Amino acid sequence: MLKYNLDNHFDALLDNEHPIELFEPMAYALSSGGKRLRPQLVLMACNMFNGTLNNAIPAMNAIEVFHNFTLIHDDIMDQADVRRNQPTVHKQFDYPTAILSGDAMMIKSFQYLYQLPQEVWHLALPLFTTTAMEICKGQQYDKNFETKKHISIDEYIEMIRLKTAVLLATSLKLGAIAASAPEEYTNTLYEIGINIGLAFQIQDDYLDLYGDPLTFGKKIGGDIACGKKTFLYVLANTQAKQYEKEIINAYYHNKNIILSERIENIKQLYNRLNIPQTYQQWLTKYVNKAIELLNTLPVVDNEKKQPLQDLINKLKDRNR
Amino acid sequence: MLKYNLDNHFDALLDNEHPIELFEPMAYALSSGGKRLRPQLVLMACNMFNGTLNNAIPAMNAIEVFHNFTLIHDDIMDQADVRRNQPTVHKQFDYPTAILSGDAMMIKSFQYLYQLPQEVWHLALPLFTTTAMEICKGQQYDKNFETKKHISIDEYIEMIRLKTAVLLATSLKLGAIAASAPEEYTNTLYEIGINIGLAFQIQDDYLDLYGDPLTFGKKIGGDIACGKKTFLYVLANTQAKQYEKEIINAYYHNKNIILSERIENIKQLYNRLNIPQTYQQWLTKYVNKAIELLNTLPVVDNEKKQPLQDLINKLKDRNR
Repeated sequence: MLKYNLDNHFDALLDNEHPIELFEPMAYALSSGGKRLRPQLVLMACNMFNGTLNNAIPAMNAIEVFHNFTLIHDDIMDQADVRRNQPTVHKQFDYPTAILSGDAMMIKSFQYLYQLPQEVWHLALPLFTTTAMEICKGQQYDKNFETKKHISIDEYIEMIRLKTAVLLATSLKLGAIAASAPEEYTNTLYEIGINIGLAFQIQDDYLDLYGDPLTFGKKIGGDIACGKKTFLYVLANTQAKQYEKEIINAYYHNKNIILSERIENIKQLYNRLNIPQTYQQWLTKYVNKAIELLNTLPVVDNEKKQPLQDLINKLKDRNR
Repeated sequence: MLKYNLDNHFDALLDNEHPIELFEPMAYALSSGGKRLRPQLVLMACNMFNGTLNNAIPAMNAIEVFHNFTLIHDDIMDQADVRRNQPTVHKQFDYPTAILSGDAMMIKSFQYLYQLPQEVWHLALPLFTTTAMEICKGQQYDKNFETKKHISIDEYIEMIRLKTAVLLATSLKLGAIAASAPEEYTNTLYEIGINIGLAFQIQDDYLDLYGDPLTFGKKIGGDIACGKKTFLYVLANTQAKQYEKEIINAYYHNKNIILSERIENIKQLYNRLNIPQTYQQWLTKYVNKAIELLNTLPVVDNEKKQPLQDLINKLKDRNR
């Protein structure tokens, strides 16, 4: 496996760029950590097809920088004050700075992308821009959901596919493209990434309510506190009787009731509707699909598949 | 000359794209008119080297869509309520919509760019992204100027080169690249565009104060009203004695004095310092340089040079 200290890499990536007023907020966002999941996926896929670290780096940079751009602008739209235990960019600096630095960060991600060899541009560039546009569409659907009365499970899955899964899928596919993998296999990696992404996102929603407060790292029930319609909420509203829907929605949105009580009552109702079990079936479906697809990749040494296999397995008992 | 109805083209360009909530604000911005100067430049340059309309269209779309993205985000940063006599995007819709639609619009501009033939990607793509980043830097310098005490003429010119001129230059160069023009000539067109852009921007600053209220289309003195440091302001502060600088700055920033009086006094002081004459020398310098460069392009039929020649000549007596 390609060994590389991703945190050191991204902490220093945007140092020494000018003007400082434009790049400091970008470096601030990029060095604030996170799981570096996407660059890990790029590396794993690149390694599977015997690519080198030099092959992977432009793709890793493009994707991680793009991802952090979306976080900066999403945090403005959501008026979020804190990200990864530190003030969001618009809080640390100001709104115009967060808008402009975000824009520059997106452009920077394209500049990294163009550092891939020109032989793979025809595969890499349309993939990256299509994904970028899909992420905007996913964010738009997420915004639409705030005021939408009924959200079907299919609509919810499509939203998180666009908002979250396509970038994980593109991380894997771009890592493989950077290693000049055959197109057939890069498409399989993309599908694996979609399933990982969907699993990851519904798990995020689950842990927000059912996570262990000691390991989760964020306050339990944050999604209910800010009225965010999650996978659990969508599942519950699909399965609930009319009077139960009314109870869920009342506790979800009535801020006159104290938060802990709202959270507790919703949780009890979800339990009664077997939402944790239903969620678990969905999670297992996506995880199994990812593993099944990984097994269809015959050209790859098992040893080189192992890191991705491990990452998928770990998904099952992620607790933060 | 390639004949084409640019307004019809851009008014309809983003129709029928989904989701509507994301694309409607983009179409709203794009169809609100403007001079379509950048697509005109693309067409002129493409035509000079015998390119076709089909060659030019991806470059025109990429540049005009990118330009309108910058306007949407700049208007948020500047808290501008009106653009081209209609509400700005964040006023007509809301802030999150303007941020997200702007982002999507930038991505869309890259999608148009990739419709250029792959043979010219290695020339077109790095040019476009470098220019995009330069525009962000220019916007950052412009923001920095709001609180900067002394701005030299060189600093001001560098700011407007980045913020305005590079995109006009890239319009010409990209039009020529799309027509597979030799690199040497595309570079000359870029330099012509820089000079047109600088002339255009300092003229904007001049007309804002000295324009004819009947033809200018905007209120005279708008830059003074919002405290924007213009080319005239920078020239005056370079030439003025200390007490005159204090007078300029007092009238520029003291909102207790009624606006018409502030404008009138600043104008009188500028007149006393011969700022209109100094400005005219700068304008002439850039216009003459553009014409001189155009004359060095021997391969091009004079007839095909004529539209750009006319555009440069018209710059001299532009009044709106």
